[in-house]
Amino acid sequence: MDYFSSHISDLVEQLSSLPGIGSKTAQRLAFFIISQPEEKAKRLAASIVAARTNVRYCKCCCTLTDAEICPICSNPKRDKSTIMVVETPRDLAAYEKTGKYEGVYHVLHGAISPMLGIGPDDIRLKELMTRLSSGDVQEVIIATNSSLEGETTAMYISRLVKPTGIRTTRIASGVPVGGDLENIDEVTLLRALDGRVVL
Amino acid sequence: MDYFSSHISDLVEQLSSLPGIGSKTAQRLAFFIISQPEEKAKRLAASIVAARTNVRYCKCCCTLTDAEICPICSNPKRDKSTIMVVETPRDLAAYEKTGKYEGVYHVLHGAISPMLGIGPDDIRLKELMTRLSSGDVQEVIIATNSSLEGETTAMYISRLVKPTGIRTTRIASGVPVGGDLENIDEVTLLRALDGRVVL
Repeated sequence: MDYFSSHISDLVEQLSSLPGIGSKTAQRLAFFIISQPEEKAKRLAASIVAARTNVRYCKCCCTLTDAEICPICSNPKRDKSTIMVVETPRDLAAYEKTGKYEGVYHVLHGAISPMLGIGPDDIRLKELMTRLSSGDVQEVIIATNSSLEGETTAMYISRLVKPTGIRTTRIASGVPVGGDLENIDEVTLLRALDGRVVL
Repeated sequence: MDYFSSHISDLVEQLSSLPGIGSKTAQRLAFFIISQPEEKAKRLAASIVAARTNVRYCKCCCTLTDAEICPICSNPKRDKSTIMVVETPRDLAAYEKTGKYEGVYHVLHGAISPMLGIGPDDIRLKELMTRLSSGDVQEVIIATNSSLEGETTAMYISRLVKPTGIRTTRIASGVPVGGDLENIDEVTLLRALDGRVVL
């Protein structure tokens, strides 16, 4: 791309290294950034550096935050006896958006995947077990994804937690609300049938 | 999003202001940036600032570059007597990728659009006319988009150039190579018919 300036080519290259951003999108974004007022571009750059340098893991739940303890763990109104285990901070965000969950979280930062070579020691399981050993926890809700890796992780955690006697639950799997039965895969349909509840 | 750190929320907000990046994609990108090594994040930030601060318009063809005259205009091998008029530097890039066009370009940075209030004075038409008045130009190839705005601009330019006696051409409009006739709109089909060539 020597027909552009080397600065533009460099920016396009940097942007295309982001997930889901192809070279065309990167080009579009680069030209958009260039066409903006200088302070806007600088603000974007500054927020990238600030987020990367100031963010760390919450000492309690391992989510990404900028304090020692994240806002959720340090909130006295949250029920510390219920821990929801999720794979990523984005999953935490998804449940927080519902506004109905009152407990706290534990972020694993991944799921067990023999295929990708990710074992139990590569995710934040040790931290979870340390939290459980404190004795205040009454329920562990496993909310890992409904994928092969998520299910494997859920099974592994439930076996790990069982000896402690703490109640271990798994979020329900079934037909999504608003979903058309005819468009839903067989595995989900069977799960929904297995998990049927009395009305 | 007070369940994230304020730095992450800020980065997500900044990223969502980019075109085509929704809040979910912005969140995904933000977490990807945070998970990368610090120098990678800093390099991305630096390339944004570098591109924005060092890029300027080529004094000749008005494309974005970091020198006074862009690499294409300053290339002695390019045929300066043929000017292809395009709307954006990305359109220039698209033609450069073909590797077959030997002439130079003129980037308008937009197209005439009465709907959006963009008139002939808002795009780089004056600069084009100044170039044409030098007397060395033999052909102006109008390669604006085949949209309403692009066609309007093409018509406007052709009328503007006509009095100078310089040959003015328009890139062909028709069925794209590899395109299935049954999936192509009527206007394109009629254009292809009108523009048929003798074999």
